[in-house]
Amino acid sequence: MKENKQSKHTVHHESNPANIKRPPVTVIGLGMMGSALAQALLKEGYRTTVWNRSADKAAGLAAQGAVVAGTVAEAVAASPLIIICVLDYGAVNEILEQAGDLLDGRAIVNLTNGTPAQARQMAAWAAEQGIEYLDGGIMAVPQMIASPGALLLYSGSSKIIDTYGPALESFGSTKYLGQDPGLASLHDLALLSAMYGMFSGFFHAVAMIRSEQLQAESFTSLVVPWLQAMSASLPLMAQAVDAGDHQTKVSSLHINQTGFGHFIDACRELGISTELMTPIQELINRGVAEGYGTDGLSRLVELLQKPESV
Amino acid sequence: MKENKQSKHTVHHESNPANIKRPPVTVIGLGMMGSALAQALLKEGYRTTVWNRSADKAAGLAAQGAVVAGTVAEAVAASPLIIICVLDYGAVNEILEQAGDLLDGRAIVNLTNGTPAQARQMAAWAAEQGIEYLDGGIMAVPQMIASPGALLLYSGSSKIIDTYGPALESFGSTKYLGQDPGLASLHDLALLSAMYGMFSGFFHAVAMIRSEQLQAESFTSLVVPWLQAMSASLPLMAQAVDAGDHQTKVSSLHINQTGFGHFIDACRELGISTELMTPIQELINRGVAEGYGTDGLSRLVELLQKPESV
Ligand SMILES: NC(=O)c1ccc[n+]([C@@H]2O[C@H](COP(=O)([O-])OP(=O)(O)OC[C@H]3O[C@@H](n4cnc5c(N)ncnc54)[C@H](OP(=O)(O)O)[C@@H]3O)[C@@H](O)[C@H]2O)c1
Ligand SMILES: NC(=O)c1ccc[n+]([C@@H]2O[C@H](COP(=O)([O-])OP(=O)(O)OC[C@H]3O[C@@H](n4cnc5c(N)ncnc54)[C@H](OP(=O)(O)O)[C@@H]3O)[C@@H](O)[C@H]2O)c1
Repeated sequence: MKENKQSKHTVHHESNPANIKRPPVTVIGLGMMGSALAQALLKEGYRTTVWNRSADKAAGLAAQGAVVAGTVAEAVAASPLIIICVLDYGAVNEILEQAGDLLDGRAIVNLTNGTPAQARQMAAWAAEQGIEYLDGGIMAVPQMIASPGALLLYSGSSKIIDTYGPALESFGSTKYLGQDPGLASLHDLALLSAMYGMFSGFFHAVAMIRSEQLQAESFTSLVVPWLQAMSASLPLMAQAVDAGDHQTKVSSLHINQTGFGHFIDACRELGISTELMTPIQELINRGVAEGYGTDGLSRLVELLQKPESV
Repeated sequence: MKENKQSKHTVHHESNPANIKRPPVTVIGLGMMGSALAQALLKEGYRTTVWNRSADKAAGLAAQGAVVAGTVAEAVAASPLIIICVLDYGAVNEILEQAGDLLDGRAIVNLTNGTPAQARQMAAWAAEQGIEYLDGGIMAVPQMIASPGALLLYSGSSKIIDTYGPALESFGSTKYLGQDPGLASLHDLALLSAMYGMFSGFFHAVAMIRSEQLQAESFTSLVVPWLQAMSASLPLMAQAVDAGDHQTKVSSLHINQTGFGHFIDACRELGISTELMTPIQELINRGVAEGYGTDGLSRLVELLQKPESV
């Protein structure tokens, strides 16, 4: 209880420049990612308190100067800013239950992956408790943390961004998406799907190349600049989606349908699986069947927004 | 017959610098792409003879200085270098039949889309006839032709590249892949599959963003740099494929499997179709089921090289 009051005190003294610049920070969850986050804070000179369910994971960080809390309550009491990065929201909930009232007046930054709905639900709960809540998505692997190449998406409490922005920047590049706490998760998942799509096309392409006993590595000198060049057409397609106007002079669904047929034939000729490509073909076919043959590829986005074809 | 001899003559006088630099060129097929190719040659000052099945398509080019041939035979007789760009190989075959013996000693550059097997078959036929044959794949839309951003892949006769390289460079950037005439088509199709994969991921991502009434265009300021950053991992995955060594410290199939499950749940929560993403999930699941859970994503390429799962 005393601890609790003390930390509220810290939050209310935001006007103290020393506190604002280097507030104590707590990191809960010391898996691969949480450990990287704690390490980044230590490197920047933050007084960092850590807690992990399996205590042994804190040892390395302790050697680097972290304060190891024995309980969640202790960890929460130690700092006005609490970073949580564990397996899933189930784990987050278990942890928050152990903290109880000690969370009042604290700022929570939750970097655990989840869905937009989970983030919104947790933000609503936090608001009821008088807890500031910022949700985050980490677009990086642990090895990238503390480099500018690591992108961290945030949404929810702008107050946390204003107050603790510098601490968060220890992790990488910060992108604040707005007050709606679901936005970080939404954008995180959207970026991941874009990445998986690019990877799947690449895997199919490499399977083609390898089926003819060629080196995948030398193919990358062709495919990487090609994908970068083709990514220039994405903003135009996005504009078409926003406008709901999919007219094209370049590449209609009809032309793509014809080309795709030949392409799938060629893949079969090479003896490789078309399982990652036929779904795209089927979506194009559906677009043509629904009367959009003269529209551009951007039309496919609207088809995806409807429930799956029956 | 006389024409035929004359043109052989032209080919044999390759040592005449004027002929080497600006040989007369014939373009057969004046669809969207063929017209752009003929226009590029005219712009560079080549004496350009054109032929198209439907004669009306030649009118615009005639006004720009093209010689319009009345028959395929006339078109073939006019130049040592014959560029063909029509709908498909069926159309190419019909055209070549009309040319008959006049093709002897000519150089054919076939920019019609097809499969590696079709290209190899045509090259074999050409070799029997004493015709030099270069197969090509155009990685550009007609609007891009004659700009360095247009990439043209070639394979087959290196003699054509050596002799007529400058003429071909009128179309865009030339990339010669080797003597095997199937290579241009193989790489063309592989690059297209990489593009379709990237587009499919983007469409899914935009469907997620749009399902929450956000602007697709502002999302592109996030997704385009993200994809460019992620494309940096492609060469590493290619190396893993070449080495057949898919060990990873970063992102195992097992971790991807767990994440993908949550991701698909989130898509369903948003009410959008997962049809472009579940095939990737199924492939990852197959990798784990076959005992590759600790391998990286690059393992998926080998799964695609086996026939589709039954
Ligand atoms: N690794 C990445 O590349 C990456 C990238 C972006 C985002 N993320 C996200 O970051 C979060 C953490 O990932 P990670 O890579 O650090 O995973 P990890 O190495 O598997 O660590 C999982 C952590 O969650 C803890 N945990 C699990 N269940 C718990 C429970 N019921 N109560 C308390 N703690 C619990 C674990 O504690 P124990 O040590 O006691 O098991 C461990 O600290 C995940 O949401 C992940 O999606 C990871
Ligand atoms: N457009 C692109 O963005 C693009 C990009 C890369 C590659 N390509 C490839 O370039 C080639 C041509 O495409 P395109 O865009 O120019 O197509 P297009 O505008 O539809 O033109 C097709 C051409 O093929 C001719 N043709 C069709 N069947 C024929 C036959 N049996 N005999 C003689 N001529 C015949 C047509 O003659 P008629 O005028 O008499 O019908 C026309 O000149 C295709 O292989 C395509 O895949 C196109």
